[in-house]
Amino acid sequence: MSDLDLTRFSINQMTVKQLTLPELAAACRDLGVPAVGLWRAPVQEYGVEAAARLVRDAGLTVTTLCRGGFLTTVDADERAAALADNRRAVDEAAALGTDTLVLVSGGLPPGAKDLRAARERIADALTELAPYAEDHGVKLAIEPLHPMFASDRCVVSTLTQALDLAERFPAHQVGVTVDTYHIWWDDTAPEAIARAGAQNRIHTFQLADWITPLPEGVLNGRGQIGDGAIDMRQWQGYVEAAGYTGSIEVELFNEDLWAGDGRELLAETARRWAENVEV
Amino acid sequence: MSDLDLTRFSINQMTVKQLTLPELAAACRDLGVPAVGLWRAPVQEYGVEAAARLVRDAGLTVTTLCRGGFLTTVDADERAAALADNRRAVDEAAALGTDTLVLVSGGLPPGAKDLRAARERIADALTELAPYAEDHGVKLAIEPLHPMFASDRCVVSTLTQALDLAERFPAHQVGVTVDTYHIWWDDTAPEAIARAGAQNRIHTFQLADWITPLPEGVLNGRGQIGDGAIDMRQWQGYVEAAGYTGSIEVELFNEDLWAGDGRELLAETARRWAENVEV
Repeated sequence: MSDLDLTRFSINQMTVKQLTLPELAAACRDLGVPAVGLWRAPVQEYGVEAAARLVRDAGLTVTTLCRGGFLTTVDADERAAALADNRRAVDEAAALGTDTLVLVSGGLPPGAKDLRAARERIADALTELAPYAEDHGVKLAIEPLHPMFASDRCVVSTLTQALDLAERFPAHQVGVTVDTYHIWWDDTAPEAIARAGAQNRIHTFQLADWITPLPEGVLNGRGQIGDGAIDMRQWQGYVEAAGYTGSIEVELFNEDLWAGDGRELLAETARRWAENVEV
Repeated sequence: MSDLDLTRFSINQMTVKQLTLPELAAACRDLGVPAVGLWRAPVQEYGVEAAARLVRDAGLTVTTLCRGGFLTTVDADERAAALADNRRAVDEAAALGTDTLVLVSGGLPPGAKDLRAARERIADALTELAPYAEDHGVKLAIEPLHPMFASDRCVVSTLTQALDLAERFPAHQVGVTVDTYHIWWDDTAPEAIARAGAQNRIHTFQLADWITPLPEGVLNGRGQIGDGAIDMRQWQGYVEAAGYTGSIEVELFNEDLWAGDGRELLAETARRWAENVEV
């Protein structure tokens, strides 16, 4: 991959989840990939301190940790447990050396129909979580998920909604995740990106492409960069016009891609990234 | 069903697509269902004039015909064919005695990534179609479809986008379809409904509930009224505050519901409708 400028490339661990953490670190070194976004479950499985040492020894930057959140419960015990888990996620982010924890807010509680009330509970939880994160040098990055996840995964469906929540807190505590897969359809998103950038709240920029047909459950159908309907350079242009200069991370969930060889997938993803962004 | 006030109920033919048109008409008569929304394919199969006679003889009001649209092509021949087909749809609506033709705009052409340009092509096509529809006493009702359909079915994803298109034409030519399934996640939709109502552009109000997990392809997973995440009375409240007094049509696409008995499904849908709206 020596011909590619991968300086700003980051590979999200989920994209190549068939690789173990050591395999991922080795593949990144061999291919010249400078940065990774990590996920809590495989990091916990490997051991947080061991994982931190592994990525440090491999010279990898950790751009994000995915993910905290799931803060929409109405039950007091569940809320306390969710907050405790989110504090652990902050601790893990700090241990791994990343300053960005991605938050997926959570869906509607069973039987509930009030999206606005659920978003208010997120704001309420962040009042406790955000100062804790700041104390540990970690920024929270609220990720709006595509509206098809509004009931069961994330009641924050647009960048505007994410910003409306984030703006209740200082920018160094709470910002947003801009992920093309979730917002590409939204003609108000470019304006929201400008607003986020003006406030220094674009905490990470992630890419995945939109392909159809969507699979059952719609979670694991994200397209390889360049395979779908999204103009990546256009979205890169929006975040950069808004002042974003950080990593551009690729996060794909795709059963077909996971069925193949992980190192080849990483190499292909790096090539696609370089073809579809302005480096 | 004599205990239910079904005055404002309309059953969309697709909800009970296991019924033939005569079976549907008979079931409506037996159950006291006063109105139907029809689809072009089964009407054409039965014969447009015969279908018009059948529903007229059964005393049924035809609230909508579904659907015209698919106007996003860039190819001149395809565009001409699409416009010709939409003029036929207008003719069929007029023959069936409904004043409302629902429009599903169409997705991105193969390889295209520009949603805005595709929406402009819809506006361009409507310039030809809307006066033709008016001449035949038919209003066009642009339906925003859920953003999960933005690439392959409908580049109009929000009520605001639909209104931005509709407002280029007189309200008696072009308005919008308000369908809970497609807009329930959108916190800007209530304001858009108010705007649509102020301009007399709410041409039909349809209900379906949001349930998960979504099936592969995401088309046929709409929930029976009351089974999902949508507060139907709240959305009814929005359209009525905006001045809408017309039929409230139930349009479900659901493989599981289609697998059962059509008459029982119609009876159950009427019950659910009456339980979940303010009659």
